[in-house]
Parts: sequence; C-alpha cells; structure tokens
Amino acid sequence: MDNFRQWTPHAPMGWNSWDCFGASVTEAEVRANADYVAGRLKPFGYEYIVVDIQWYEPQANSWAYHQFTDLAMDDECRLIPAASRFPSAADGAGFAPLAAYVHQLGLKFGIHLMRGIPRQAVHQNRTFAGGRYAARDVAANNICPWNSDMYGLDMTQPGAQVYYDQLMALYASWGVDFLKVDDICDSRLYGMLQPEIQAIRRAIDQTGRPMVLSLSPGPADIEKGAFLQQNANMWRLTDDFWDTWDQLKAMFPVVAKWAPFVREGNWPDPDMLPLGAIRQRAREKDPTQPRSRFTKAESQTMLTLWSLLRAPLFLGGDLTYGGEEEALFTNPALLTMRQTLQDAWQEAADDTTVVWRGISADQQYLAVFNLTDKATALAASMQLPAAARSVWQPAAGAKALIPAHGVGLWAFAPATR
Amino acid sequence: MDNFRQWTPHAPMGWNSWDCFGASVTEAEVRANADYVAGRLKPFGYEYIVVDIQWYEPQANSWAYHQFTDLAMDDECRLIPAASRFPSAADGAGFAPLAAYVHQLGLKFGIHLMRGIPRQAVHQNRTFAGGRYAARDVAANNICPWNSDMYGLDMTQPGAQVYYDQLMALYASWGVDFLKVDDICDSRLYGMLQPEIQAIRRAIDQTGRPMVLSLSPGPADIEKGAFLQQNANMWRLTDDFWDTWDQLKAMFPVVAKWAPFVREGNWPDPDMLPLGAIRQRAREKDPTQPRSRFTKAESQTMLTLWSLLRAPLFLGGDLTYGGEEEALFTNPALLTMRQTLQDAWQEAADDTTVVWRGISADQQYLAVFNLTDKATALAASMQLPAAARSVWQPAAGAKALIPAHGVGLWAFAPATR
Amino acid sequence: MDNFRQWTPHAPMGWNSWDCFGASVTEAEVRANADYVAGRLKPFGYEYIVVDIQWYEPQANSWAYHQFTDLAMDDECRLIPAASRFPSAADGAGFAPLAAYVHQLGLKFGIHLMRGIPRQAVHQNRTFAGGRYAARDVAANNICPWNSDMYGLDMTQPGAQVYYDQLMALYASWGVDFLKVDDICDSRLYGMLQPEIQAIRRAIDQTGRPMVLSLSPGPADIEKGAFLQQNANMWRLTDDFWDTWDQLKAMFPVVAKWAPFVREGNWPDPDMLPLGAIRQRAREKDPTQPRSRFTKAESQTMLTLWSLLRAPLFLGGDLTYGGEEEALFTNPALLTMRQTLQDAWQEAADDTTVVWRGISADQQYLAVFNLTDKATALAASMQLPAAARSVWQPAAGAKALIPAHGVGLWAFAPATR
Amino acid sequence: MDNFRQWTPHAPMGWNSWDCFGASVTEAEVRANADYVAGRLKPFGYEYIVVDIQWYEPQANSWAYHQFTDLAMDDECRLIPAASRFPSAADGAGFAPLAAYVHQLGLKFGIHLMRGIPRQAVHQNRTFAGGRYAARDVAANNICPWNSDMYGLDMTQPGAQVYYDQLMALYASWGVDFLKVDDICDSRLYGMLQPEIQAIRRAIDQTGRPMVLSLSPGPADIEKGAFLQQNANMWRLTDDFWDTWDQLKAMFPVVAKWAPFVREGNWPDPDMLPLGAIRQRAREKDPTQPRSRFTKAESQTMLTLWSLLRAPLFLGGDLTYGGEEEALFTNPALLTMRQTLQDAWQEAADDTTVVWRGISADQQYLAVFNLTDKATALAASMQLPAAARSVWQPAAGAKALIPAHGVGLWAFAPATR
Repeated sequence: MDNFRQWTPHAPMGWNSWDCFGASVTEAEVRANADYVAGRLKPFGYEYIVVDIQWYEPQANSWAYHQFTDLAMDDECRLIPAASRFPSAADGAGFAPLAAYVHQLGLKFGIHLMRGIPRQAVHQNRTFAGGRYAARDVAANNICPWNSDMYGLDMTQPGAQVYYDQLMALYASWGVDFLKVDDICDSRLYGMLQPEIQAIRRAIDQTGRPMVLSLSPGPADIEKGAFLQQNANMWRLTDDFWDTWDQLKAMFPVVAKWAPFVREGNWPDPDMLPLGAIRQRAREKDPTQPRSRFTKAESQTMLTLWSLLRAPLFLGGDLTYGGEEEALFTNPALLTMRQTLQDAWQEAADDTTVVWRGISADQQYLAVFNLTDKATALAASMQLPAAARSVWQPAAGAKALIPAHGVGLWAFAPATR
Repeated sequence: MDNFRQWTPHAPMGWNSWDCFGASVTEAEVRANADYVAGRLKPFGYEYIVVDIQWYEPQANSWAYHQFTDLAMDDECRLIPAASRFPSAADGAGFAPLAAYVHQLGLKFGIHLMRGIPRQAVHQNRTFAGGRYAARDVAANNICPWNSDMYGLDMTQPGAQVYYDQLMALYASWGVDFLKVDDICDSRLYGMLQPEIQAIRRAIDQTGRPMVLSLSPGPADIEKGAFLQQNANMWRLTDDFWDTWDQLKAMFPVVAKWAPFVREGNWPDPDMLPLGAIRQRAREKDPTQPRSRFTKAESQTMLTLWSLLRAPLFLGGDLTYGGEEEALFTNPALLTMRQTLQDAWQEAADDTTVVWRGISADQQYLAVFNLTDKATALAASMQLPAAARSVWQPAAGAKALIPAHGVGLWAFAPATR
Repeated sequence: MDNFRQWTPHAPMGWNSWDCFGASVTEAEVRANADYVAGRLKPFGYEYIVVDIQWYEPQANSWAYHQFTDLAMDDECRLIPAASRFPSAADGAGFAPLAAYVHQLGLKFGIHLMRGIPRQAVHQNRTFAGGRYAARDVAANNICPWNSDMYGLDMTQPGAQVYYDQLMALYASWGVDFLKVDDICDSRLYGMLQPEIQAIRRAIDQTGRPMVLSLSPGPADIEKGAFLQQNANMWRLTDDFWDTWDQLKAMFPVVAKWAPFVREGNWPDPDMLPLGAIRQRAREKDPTQPRSRFTKAESQTMLTLWSLLRAPLFLGGDLTYGGEEEALFTNPALLTMRQTLQDAWQEAADDTTVVWRGISADQQYLAVFNLTDKATALAASMQLPAAARSVWQPAAGAKALIPAHGVGLWAFAPATR
Repeated sequence: MDNFRQWTPHAPMGWNSWDCFGASVTEAEVRANADYVAGRLKPFGYEYIVVDIQWYEPQANSWAYHQFTDLAMDDECRLIPAASRFPSAADGAGFAPLAAYVHQLGLKFGIHLMRGIPRQAVHQNRTFAGGRYAARDVAANNICPWNSDMYGLDMTQPGAQVYYDQLMALYASWGVDFLKVDDICDSRLYGMLQPEIQAIRRAIDQTGRPMVLSLSPGPADIEKGAFLQQNANMWRLTDDFWDTWDQLKAMFPVVAKWAPFVREGNWPDPDMLPLGAIRQRAREKDPTQPRSRFTKAESQTMLTLWSLLRAPLFLGGDLTYGGEEEALFTNPALLTMRQTLQDAWQEAADDTTVVWRGISADQQYLAVFNLTDKATALAASMQLPAAARSVWQPAAGAKALIPAHGVGLWAFAPATR
C-alpha cells in the first residue's frame, strides 16, 4: 500500500508557474519554460513542469482570484482548462496535448487542483457519473476562505469517492504525473482534511498511474506527520514562501523540526524557490523589483537549507529570462549532497548562528548559517579538517568569511564514529 | 444613539416557533399560537410572536435544512415568505398580512433572519438596488457552517450597507417589531461579526421603526459584552438550549457571569423556554417524549434563574395543546420579581447548591437551587425572616423541602442595609 | 454581605510608593509624601498613602527582588516591617506608628502584601496560632514566578483560613485602611486564585475594620468579573502600566470592555498614574528620564480615560519634587466629571480616533482621543452644542485642535433623550 | 556528538520500582528483583534495574510525597540515598555498593532524579563546588507542582552547569548506567525545559560514562521531537500509564504519531508495563486488586503495541511474586519482531479496529487490534498468506477470533514490494 513512495526516490525537482504568473499562466508560457528546462536543467535533475492554480478560469489575469466568477467545466462537474488560455485544450482535449508536449521533451507534467467540487455545479444542480449523483448530494457545506471556486466533499456520501475517482481518471488520461492539491493540508477554517486526503490517495492509486501527490497549503500539523507519511509524497511546511529574509529566517526552526520525517518517498516541503524573474503578473508586480529580492548569499542559504532537508526544489521564476542564480541552483556539489545525504540535523541554533551537520556514505557536511547583518568568520571552536572543501566558495576554504544572511557549507571525509 | 435601548424597558416576552416546529412552521400554526397568547397570556406580559428560521424555504418540513435547495426570493435579492407555507404572503405581500393579523390581536410580530445575502443570488449573478449593485460584489466568501442559505456580506463594499438598508426597509414596511438575527453573534467559523452587527444596527435605526434586535447564536463572547450593549437588545449566552438537566445545570455559571451586563434595554439571553408541546416536527420527534422532559421542579428552576437575570421569556411549545406548565410561567409573584428587581447576583455555588440574592425597591429575594438528585431542606445557616413568603410553595414556607433539581425562592422585606 | 462596597462610594485616590521607589521605599519617604498629600491634594480627594511591596525586606534597595533572601517575620509566621527601613516599626510595633502618623494628617494608610505564607517559615518548619498549625501543613506547593517570598495557601487545610485571619487581625490592629494583595488576580502560573480571594474577603470582614481590598496583578479575567464584583473593591485590568504611548494606547480597548462592571464600590483599575518624579530608585533609573515620559497631551489622555471609567487615581511619582502635572491631576472640571458620571461608554474606535460619551445628572460629556502623531481638528460630523465647554482648554472651545496623542473633552447640557 | 545514541542500539529493557513501590522502595526489594531478573529474564534482554523517585527521602512509605520534608543531602547540595532505606549507602557510600551488586549479576543499574537543586539547600543558604557557588545563586524561582523537593536551575548562571557536572560526576562514580530525569520533559508549569536538558546532556557526556538518558514526564511535545532525538535516548509520550483499558486505548494514536521518530538510540517511550504484582505500597493499594487489572488479552495488546514501536520495556511489578504474565513478556516471537523490525506504522484506525504493519529484513507483520468488548474474527478483506504464523496463538492461525481488547499478530514472508 505504500507503493506510491517508490515513485519519488528523491524529492521532485522542476518548475512551477505560481511565483511568476500567479493564477494566469498561459500555454505559451508553460511551453517556453518547459523548453528551457529540457534544454539546460534536465541534466541536474529538474524535470517536473507544473501548472498552478485556476487553469480553468477564462478571465484570470493576475494573482487575484475573480470571486464567484464562472469556470470552465465539463458535463461531469469537472473543471477543464480554459481554452482562452490553453488553446490546445479546446474541444475537450484537456491537458492531454500539453502533457504530451512536455513528455516528448523528456520531462514530466503536473497540475494544481483545489479539493472538492465546483460551487457552480452545486448551485446549477448538476449531476455526474451518468446522472447517478447530484453535485448537491456530495458537496459539503464547507469552503476555502481564500478562493471561491469549490465546495469540499462530504466523504460520508457514497458519490463523493466516485467524484474523486472520475477526476483522477481524467487526469491520468491526460497524462498527468504530479498533483498539487490545495486547501487540504491546512485548510485554514478546518485544519487538515484527512478524509479527503485518503479519498484522493485511493483515487490516485486506482488509476494505476504514478501521479506524485503534493499537499498544500502549510503549515502542516506535525501531530499528523505520520499520517502524511502514509498518504502523500510532499506536504507544505509553511504558508506561501516569498523572497524576504524574515520568511527565510523563520524557516530554520520549521525545517529542523520536520527533518525526522524525511525518508524515501516522503519529502517535507518548504515551498518553491522564489528566484529569478518572479512576479511577472499584476498586483504584486513592481518595476523596482523585477526579480527576486534575495541576495546571492540569501539564495545560497535557501538552497543549502532546502538541500539539507533533501526537499523538493521547484523553481519559481520565468526561466526564459535567464539569470545568474542558475549557477547556484545547479551547483553540482550541492546537488550531490542533496541526493546522497543519509541523515542531516540542526546541531545548534541561537540568535546569530544556525549549525547543521549531515552525513552521507562517504562524506560529512557542516553548514554554518550567519543570521546577522555582518559577515563573520567561522567560530574557532568549529574545527574543520584541513581537507574540507567549501561548496559555495571552493577557492576560499575555511578561512572565508560567511556573508551576512549567508552560509558556509563544507564537505569532508567523516571521522571514525 | 442608544435610543434603541428604550424600546425594551423590560426584556421581551412571547412565543417563538423553533422549539415546536423547527424550520417548518406554517401560517396557520403561527396564527393559532398568536390567538392563544392574545387570549390567555397577554395580561402576564407575553406579547411577541416570532417566526423562526427558513420561512422562505418552500420544502421545509422539519428541523433539518435541505442543503443548497432553492429559496423564495424577490427581484432585489431579498428572501420572501414561501407562499406554500404562508398563503397570505402570495403575490408579493410578504409578511404584511400576517403582521397585521398579529397587531390587531394587540401583539407584536417578529421574524428570524440569517446574516448576509442568498448564495443563489450570487451564483445566479443577480443585482439589487435597481441594478446598481451585483450580489457578487457585496457577498463575502464566508458562510454559515450549519446552513447553506447565505453568504456573509463584505462590509468594506459600499453596496453591502445598501443591501441591509433595503432589507430592513422591507421588514419595516411589513410591520416587523422584532428581529432575531442568526449566524452573527458566534458564527462558529468566524466568531462575532462586529461589522455586520453595526451595519444592521444602522439599517434598523434608519427605518425609524423600533424593531427589537436579538443576536444569535451563543455563546456570546463576554470580552465583547460592552460592544453588544451598544448595539443590540438581546444576545444569546449559549448554544441552543433544550430540555435536559445537564444543559440547565450548565446554565448557572453562564447566567452568573453575565448578570453585570443587565440594564434597561440590554438583556442577556439564555434562550427560549423548552416547555410544553415542543418537538412537534420530524426528526427529533419521539412519541415517548411528546412534551418537555423537564420536571415541574426543573421548570421552576429554569423560570427562577431566567427571572433573576431579568431575561427574555419566549415560550417554545405549541401553546394550543395547553398544559400544566402555564401555571408556572404565569406565576404572578415570579413575574413581579422579574419586573421589579434592581440587582441580583449569585452569592455562592458549589457542586450541590447555588444561591442567588436579589433586591427590588421594597423586597429582598433569596433563591436556593438544589443541584442534587434528592430533596433537601434549607441549610440552617440560611436564616429566613419569619415573614418570608415562598414564591413557588406559598403554603409551605421555609420549612418546605427543596425538590431535586428544584429551587426554593423566598421574598421578604429587606433588612436595613 | 456586600457591605464592603459601601466603603468606597467613589474609587480611591491617593499615592503609592511603587512607581518612584520600587521595593525599597523608606519611612521618611512615605512621611514626606503623606505630608505633601495632606498639605496640597486632600481637597481634591487624594487621601490614601500606600506602601507597596517588600516593606519586610531589610536589604531592598531598588525595583529588583533579592531572590530567596531572609525576611523580617514575627513568631506567628507573619512578615513585619523591616526596622532598617521603617524605624518606627522596631520592637514589634509594626506599622501602627506610621499609620497613626498618616491618620493624624487626616489621611488613610495602605499596604501591599503577597498572597500566602513566607517560604522561610515553611522551610524552617515554623508554627503559628500558638503552635496549633505548622506552616508546612497550610502551605501549598505553588509560587509566584516573579518573587520568591511566599508559598500560596492550600485553602482546603483548616489552618489556612486561620493564617489569613491572624494576618488581617494584625493589619487591622495597626490601623491599615487599604490592602493591595498581589499575585492573586492573575497569578501568572495559575490564573485567578478564587479560594484565596474568598479567604481574604472573609478575613477582612471578620476584623470589623473597613480595609479596602485591591487585587493585583492584571490582566483580570473578565469571565470572572462578576466574582470580582462580589469580593473586591478594585482589580487590575492589565499588567504594570508605565509611561509609554504604546501602553497607553493599548489601554483603550481594555477600559472599554470593563466599563459595564463599574458600580458603587466596584472599581476596575487600570493601574497607577506614572506622572512626575517616578523611577527614583535603581535599575530603571535613567538620568535622561528623570520624570515621566508622558507628554502633557498624553497625561491628559490618561487622566481623561481613567476618569471616564471612574477609576482609582493613585499618583506614582515622588510628590515632594512638585511639577506641572499637578495642575492636570487636580483639574476641577475633570474631577467633577469623574465623581458625578452616571454612565460612560466607548462609542467608536478605529486606528486614528477613539470616542467616548458620558452622562451625569445634569451634564453630557464627549471625549475625542487623537491616536495619531499629528494634531487634528474635531471631525465635522461631531456636532458640539455652541455652549460646550472644553475641560482641558477652556479658552479654546470646539475650534481647538486635538493634540497628537491627546484628547478633546467637552461638557454640555444634555439634549432630551 | 551523537555518540550517546550508540549506547542503546535497542531500546532498554528491565525493571523499575515505581509501579510496585512508589516513592518508598528499599534496598532489599531492589536486590530481590535484581536477583530475579538475573536468574530468569536476562536471556530475553531484560537488564536494567532502576530505582525510581525519592530514594533520598528517609520517611517515604508510599506513593505520596511528604511535602516540604527534610531530605538526605551531602555537603555539595547533592541528594544521597537515605540510609534508613538503603543500608549499604551509609557513611557516604551512596549507591556504589548497590550498583556493584547489580553489576556482578551481569545487569545494569539506574536511578531517578528530579531536575534542579534541593529547595532545602537554597533556604539553608548552602554552597557547593568548594564554596565557590551558593545554591541561592543558581536556583531558579521555578518548581515542580507535584513534588516539593527541588528548585529548577537557572542555566544562565555559570554555577548551574557546574552543579549538574558535579551531580553527574557523582553518579558516574557510583557506577550508574541509566538516568530517568523527571519534571523536565513536560514540566507541567513550564513545558519542556530545553536548557536543563542540554545541560544534563553535556554533564553526562563529560563524565565519559555511558549513562542512558530517559526524560519524564510526558506527554512530550512532538514539535520538539527533533530536539529530543539530539539530546536523549528515551522520552515519555504520555503522563503515567496504569493498568486500565481507557489508558491503553488512548495510547494507540500517540504511538502512531511518534513512530516516525524511532531510530537507533532514540526510543519514544510509552512508559512502563504495569503487569503482575504492582501497587505493593500504600494509598492505591487495594486488596481486591492485588495485581494488574489488565486481562491477558489487554496485556498482549500492550506488549504488541510497545513492540511495534520498538519501545523500552520496563517491568513494573514486584517480580518476586512470579506470575503467568511472564510467559507474555518473554514471548520469543514477539521479542524477535521487536529487535528486528526495520519499519512499522499504523495503517488504519477507527472506533473498533486498529491495524499496524511492520517489516523486517525477512518478515512482514500484521497486527489487528480489537477495540471492542467482543471477540471478533479477522475481517475477510484482510488477506493473510496461508503460511502466516500467529505470534500469540501459534496453534490457531488466522481463523482464531481476536479477543475483546486483544490483538491478532501474524508474521509471514514478505510479498515482493
């Protein structure tokens, strides 16, 4: 029953449309980013191309949701891609053509969904499963407070599982490889919705297609961490993560407490990487901030922390703009550490410094994060073997200062333990 | 600005349809109970006739709500009485004919409403105020979790106040005297909805008609008690109250803590009196419980506690069945105490006994509640003046035992304080 | 039984040693401030002279407590004044001589105490009541987390009430008029300690001496407001209040929510007035802040808000230094309002403005507080009668700007209600 | 730095004095139980002999603590065994003789301690470390609410670490192998005391002696599970566990949620096994309950659940009475499963049934717990291989009913995964 964990021997890597395009990404933009990943990033492990929220909303044009607006829907109460934004989806083709495009690039294709059934299906009194069930009978009187598209499902009603089964069957028929299910991990009003998670788990497994399951939003409840390990591949550790030092700094204790839950097929998720050309659409767009606000040092901190957790790495920027950060997220020594770590843990933390250690079969790692606003030298009490190599500053070694908000990350042969 | 408090110099008394008919009361039933009140109870102060929830639901037939069902609504997105249940409301007459009937009996007429705007108006993309506002623009993406009729209103939208203004204008035009607004005092998902309460306060005051404002459901938040005093005549202290000793016993500390908030026009409300022929409809109906489960002693306890709080007294049973409890809720000495008390407070409380004292201009009161399952004598330490008169057992005096779950209530001339 | 409320027909006014001398006030300092009150402030209603915490600690020299230090104690396990600081208390005289001095000035005398029994009595295995009880038998294994002097009392032990009775008998024999009992209203670790409050209530009433009961620290729990009304004259609404705008601003919603609890003998207490020459001792002493940091406008805001609540007014500074603030806290129009108000309530509050209204038998009051950092005019929508008089700026009237952090307070004849 | 985890490659097994003797065990009783373990249980892995709380209390005679009583203490403010109960400890020998006795039996010796420094040392103003530090200087003003022996330590004071260092040095000199530190994991008033845990970790590591560290009481906070993994070998998952079905039933979700934290050297601890001749002392002693109230089926349930978690197994009864339960806690197939499991997890749970699965290198395990009060057959949907062997009913196999409150536990060769 735990087979789904075998689908992701390492945490997924790829690209997601949210940080750059919000609710309004278009097919052309997806294809352009997929092309980029296939052309330059696939050798480093990046392979998933994920279309985030509201691909079924014909008018979407920013991060904002048009409240109570009409959505593209098929006769079975399932939302389908808006042809106005995804031309290849016209005439009922759904995401099959776009998925095929991504597959022929050697990549994998993912989509986002909100738990539940469209509210418009309920208030129009629509049916599904050949008319056997009414939307009104399976809908629960519960909602997502930040998006008005769906009602949740009442899993005590027999038709509710049927609805999810049909939905996942459609996605499998399109060739979907990855599902980011939203409003379910911490649904704000109701906490974690365990019956719906289990229903989606069953529905996916029944398709026979290995569709990786990622749960949003965070913060996930660590009291239910064991349940998450049994039902999902990824789950979000915090609410949406953006490019501010405050948010990055706040991630340290969260990552530390979730580290015991990392194992093959279970990847606690500190969210996407807001690097490069993010914020390409609308309301948060600011001409003075055309790209990520993270400094190079902060970007290294983020990539190091995520990698120590062996976490998913999803790029959030519009890759077609290129950028210097590419050298960071393709750092071979970093990615080797991430793929080979057997264990990693926070060793110490105070107001100025966080220290992690990690071990792989043949290497030991030391990461020293500088939380202060000034560059600092490695503390004398931190003895580094002479042969230690710096992942981020290979030329400098242990004598290099650790920049403000930055990290020193060293690899060396383990002492006998 | 506090004028509305002058509309209820004493807490309202009357009849409400919920405890006997749930969501499904009919016009004939309302008229029959109004006739009864006019004929027998008006001299004791009972005067309000209140139609409770879902009078706009054509199919309502029990306490259960038909989830997502279609509702009777006018062109201005306002719910109107279902003519199938209220024949006099046909052809757009609304509750005007029924209110007129109640008025000519010398009584007052009240209705229930859920805060917000009908969800069906939102999903049908309807407008109001002569098309100036769309339901979608003023609806908030928030709901009542136990009833699927409405969305809340987003009071930051200008049309939202207009909607409430039009709604209250309609009610005033019908001749409504009392409004029980629900899903607003403790809305389960969102706590107290202060902006909507203030909007309804403004909308009522603007009509120029003195419509008493009662807020549901409880428990009200005592942290916001001062706010409630400034905005409403009544507010519920607990969730729905029914005829069990456990619920009655649990009411003691709640009433005690709200006593400081009692003043003219502000009446903390421990809910209706589930006496007599309650549960006349559907799912909770039980042939072995055709009437209230309260014993005579428990009924006296309830009436005494409510009266010490000077609380609203709304009868919950179908009065047309008559019953011995009428002698209790029309006890003249009790009602005199309730109308004339200047102050009353819980003096002591433990697992077996609760003691209250009260004072009026010329009387002092002592109430000793017996929480145990056995009749007990008044404690010797409780010295009663020889001239003390028992409200419930005038023939017995201080020597009478206090029955199990019952109360001894005595009146006497005050000592010099 | 509620007689104790008659001891304070208006909320007490006076002087308290804490804000200026912390734990270390001396007899000379108390006498000097009593002299000042008798000479200049008594006509305005100031009359209580209160010696705050740790008058039994021989080494006290600042606000800091010497943890686990030895205390002055009599043979009955009762703490007594340290003769090193209160010379007149030598040879077992206790506070009787100092109280007599205060009384002959026409003033009243008060002291502070921590609930419970000294820890040193417990660990030295001492007895009381003629050896009938051991300290170990009545002490509870509970503590104050911010002061190490006492253990609480286990009120289920018979000797515990005896201990409080003996303690209050001693205080009454000294001539104490006012008791500020600490670590009892919100004891940090245990919340409100109701059994100890009731025990102290009983012990005071048994002495026959009207000693006003004031409970600390806050925040008091409003869920227990009715209990406080039955047992104490004053109770603290917040933790210690000092002279910062942030704390003053935070007091608005607190005062608003407690206003319904004001009645004769029950005075919700927003704490002492940190005006004038506060901080005369030790660790918080700062030569750049020799006096209160409150501006004149902020001082007026504080005095107005306290007076609208009809709250206790205890001066916190060393009065012997004099100061311009004296004109503020002796403003006759303000004090008249405070003594004669029948009701007062917060009418509106947002981020920039708080509005209160009050009524007395022949006056109406409007207070408009300016929360912003700029002087502002009274809003046009606030219509003031032409005859309105400004309490703080009698010469200016309604046209005067309300200063930053300040208040406009007007009195006028009431319209017909 | 994580070396301490290597000291317990499997979770410890042994005997603890609490469940049978409370605070009052004697040396003779310890020796008798050690003899029993050495003679009969050592081959099964039981090896630790642990003296629980208050071995320093001369008058202890039951489970109850004598509040504020005098304790045996050395010149360095360290508590020492009461010679009245541990004769071999006389003349300053401490636990060295008893530890030596246990060691020569081939077993290991453990003791209990409360965090902190004796209150009597503080109130007697004693010193330690050759007079360099006063107890008053390192004591924190914080307490254990259920035992009055100690104050906590203020780890910001330099002497505080010195105190723990000296304490652990003494224990190491006695030959202690196991430390159960109490009032530290969930200290009731203060939650988890992380600085004191870290101080004890350092102090132990500095001794050079591998003393296993066990933290009490529970419930441990799973938010701090990663911290516990870095600092302790064992930590308690709940408050004290006794022999009632309600407590056992409540353990299922707790064990499930902590399963992800199991790894070599980190053993989440559901507490001791209240089997056999428990309750041999005083207040909870009941002649009608001379032994554990658990049925045989419940005992099997407990042993199975603990073993699936690979948890510590500490016997709570006075072993010298013998008993049929010995066959249960020495079941070879069960202990083999416990020692060899690589992973185990709760697969499903509802009101009637809990299902766990586990895997070892060459076996798969299925456990089906029956929460109901009636024996039930294995659900048809649970397909067992024909070759599955029942751990508890080897003769019966899959057809056997699962008794009320009992468990069916089967082992079989794994399918290909």
